[in-house]
Amino acid sequence: MAEEFFTHIFDNGLTLLAQRMEQVTSAAMTIALRMGSSRDPVGAEGSAAVAAHWLPRGAGDRDSRQLHDALDALGCQHHEEARSEYMILSSSQLGRNLPELLPISADMVRRPTLSNETFDSCRDLVSQSLSAIEDEPMRMCNVLIREKFYPDPLGRNPLGTKESLASLTPQDVREHLRKSFTPQGALFAAAGKFVWEELVAAVGRHFGDWQGEPPAEVSTKAAASGVTHINKPTAQAQIALAFPAACLTDDQYYAGRVAEMVLSGGMGARLFTEVREKRALVYAVMARYHCLKQHAGIFVYAGTTPEKAQETLDVTVGELRRLREGVEEEEVARARTQLKSALVMQGESTAARSEALVSDYDHLGRLRSLAEISDAVDAVTAGDVLAYVHAFPADDLTALMIGPAELDTTTLT
Amino acid sequence: MAEEFFTHIFDNGLTLLAQRMEQVTSAAMTIALRMGSSRDPVGAEGSAAVAAHWLPRGAGDRDSRQLHDALDALGCQHHEEARSEYMILSSSQLGRNLPELLPISADMVRRPTLSNETFDSCRDLVSQSLSAIEDEPMRMCNVLIREKFYPDPLGRNPLGTKESLASLTPQDVREHLRKSFTPQGALFAAAGKFVWEELVAAVGRHFGDWQGEPPAEVSTKAAASGVTHINKPTAQAQIALAFPAACLTDDQYYAGRVAEMVLSGGMGARLFTEVREKRALVYAVMARYHCLKQHAGIFVYAGTTPEKAQETLDVTVGELRRLREGVEEEEVARARTQLKSALVMQGESTAARSEALVSDYDHLGRLRSLAEISDAVDAVTAGDVLAYVHAFPADDLTALMIGPAELDTTTLT
Repeated sequence: MAEEFFTHIFDNGLTLLAQRMEQVTSAAMTIALRMGSSRDPVGAEGSAAVAAHWLPRGAGDRDSRQLHDALDALGCQHHEEARSEYMILSSSQLGRNLPELLPISADMVRRPTLSNETFDSCRDLVSQSLSAIEDEPMRMCNVLIREKFYPDPLGRNPLGTKESLASLTPQDVREHLRKSFTPQGALFAAAGKFVWEELVAAVGRHFGDWQGEPPAEVSTKAAASGVTHINKPTAQAQIALAFPAACLTDDQYYAGRVAEMVLSGGMGARLFTEVREKRALVYAVMARYHCLKQHAGIFVYAGTTPEKAQETLDVTVGELRRLREGVEEEEVARARTQLKSALVMQGESTAARSEALVSDYDHLGRLRSLAEISDAVDAVTAGDVLAYVHAFPADDLTALMIGPAELDTTTLT
Repeated sequence: MAEEFFTHIFDNGLTLLAQRMEQVTSAAMTIALRMGSSRDPVGAEGSAAVAAHWLPRGAGDRDSRQLHDALDALGCQHHEEARSEYMILSSSQLGRNLPELLPISADMVRRPTLSNETFDSCRDLVSQSLSAIEDEPMRMCNVLIREKFYPDPLGRNPLGTKESLASLTPQDVREHLRKSFTPQGALFAAAGKFVWEELVAAVGRHFGDWQGEPPAEVSTKAAASGVTHINKPTAQAQIALAFPAACLTDDQYYAGRVAEMVLSGGMGARLFTEVREKRALVYAVMARYHCLKQHAGIFVYAGTTPEKAQETLDVTVGELRRLREGVEEEEVARARTQLKSALVMQGESTAARSEALVSDYDHLGRLRSLAEISDAVDAVTAGDVLAYVHAFPADDLTALMIGPAELDTTTLT
């Protein structure tokens, strides 16, 4: 598949990224604005999450209902979400509808109504979402491990807390949004069917005269890390572990991704084989790479019965550490294949590609072609993987457990 | 995008379905075998679910480890799952790896090892999965509403019960599998990059001499339906409703799908607008069409706070019934667009297309082109939608609620 990538930086600082995919009919769009939840003011945690609900409640000349109808009429599947570093506005639709979508997106980003009348219901929705986590121990476990692992406030739960949500006012959230939504550092990505020259011109028309100062950098405190046990009478015990991994800018990045696959890339991978297949300890066990711009980790999750929780923890940690004793050429070869195969499948999705453009540019300041990634993966040897796991050892684990009984965690740190 | 569809029925009854997608590099494969969980013997519920775990534990000359490694080495993302009517073996990989995958698939389907040694751990995994549902009230709600809505045993939880799982023996499950895995009625679908003539020849080589009698039809009892409340001290109240909808074979099928979109197709759709947007009653509310071969339903889900549960139920039911009072041409136009837009996006995914081939052929005995579906959706008028909602009214609702307080449900049935 021929790959065509484009980048354009407008005078106001807005960066447009694009990948033209000749073979598709759809186009996905991702707008990343510097209003991530890590920028929520102290005491006003959850501001970005509430704002993400508030944005589609009217913009430009359209009220909430008219805005929804206009997006529905274009067949848009859209979603607004506060993540750690960015607020993400994503949408998928037919490529030929992009020209009609752009002025609506410009209204949402530059002229959102943000009326007092719709604020409370947006905050209520975030509150409900926060309280729903209490019913879902697996999700709770995965939210809390990030909070412990990443330097604060990068890992915080975007939904805030009951107290912080209660204290939010429409004035404060509105002002925070107006300061945060600026073209400086904003990324605008499109992947799929479009004509590049027309896209640049249309984005320029609707966003070119957008002005604003770049928001301040986020200052961070050391991560809480450590071991946390939350006592809950759940049917399953939830175990989450995390330890540092290489960032996208690191020379050892690709070796790290191959190491992740050796651990958890397929049904023949080590965690699956040792924890699930040989011992039937868990229904689900996995290790997944997750990164922010300057921090990255391998996040391990296992759900098991309370009776098997200790053995699950011990065997899982054993596998993480056993990597250092050596990896076989053959398992590294399988891991490379898994990684490249997943890459091809993501490469066929406009939504996945549009997200990847944002992530590449944010982390590297440039776009990577699939061929570049594939070549880099191919170049990883078993020696590289071994060097990687020594450089990023699973020694000092951040751990979060939810279940009816506390486990022996003396070996974790 | 040009569409190329192929069908071939082998002498032994095996049906091969394919859609060639010139523009992609991957190929997805779906094998549907007549060992759905609705065929689990009485008292042995969960047999198919255990068998789905057992299949990849060795086949042909390969033991469990070798089989996993062989699939990983081809970059396969594979998944085995027991659904109501079929056991589904799905896998995604590069199209050029299909020729190497086919003999492995043939081993899994025709020569699975199914050793006594690996049985217990497979059953344990299903047990754990069953017990995990207890921790997830939303999932529990969605599992149980199917059980109530569909004629028994079509809606049963594929995971069985604690008791039925405990009583399973490797001998029984093995024998059930050997009787159920037959070429008669089995569907084999591929979507993506391949050469049709080579695919037919390769499938013929590996599956052509496969023999077996067709399994007996499933006999059903009337659905339990009615209203069920499960008392649980959850943070959120879970509400699930279901009522009959048109099957794929029904003349009113497309009108029904448009009606579903009017209810729940986008952020401007009725349920979202009335239940979430105007009243902030719920974080999540949706209506989704689900069908089996001879039964179909609209399944409605809402998660809310216990305080708002009664109003959520009342407003939701009100919206389901208000459709009968009339639909606007404009909202029907938006619903058609939503449906077609979703269709285009699914049409770009080899995995989604491969699943769709199986479903089309199973329900209609033929494959539908995307153009055919798009034309049929375009032809649906507001009048058709109105006629549909009178033919399939939301009068007699099956309901399942989980939460700390019982609701007034007198209006539901």
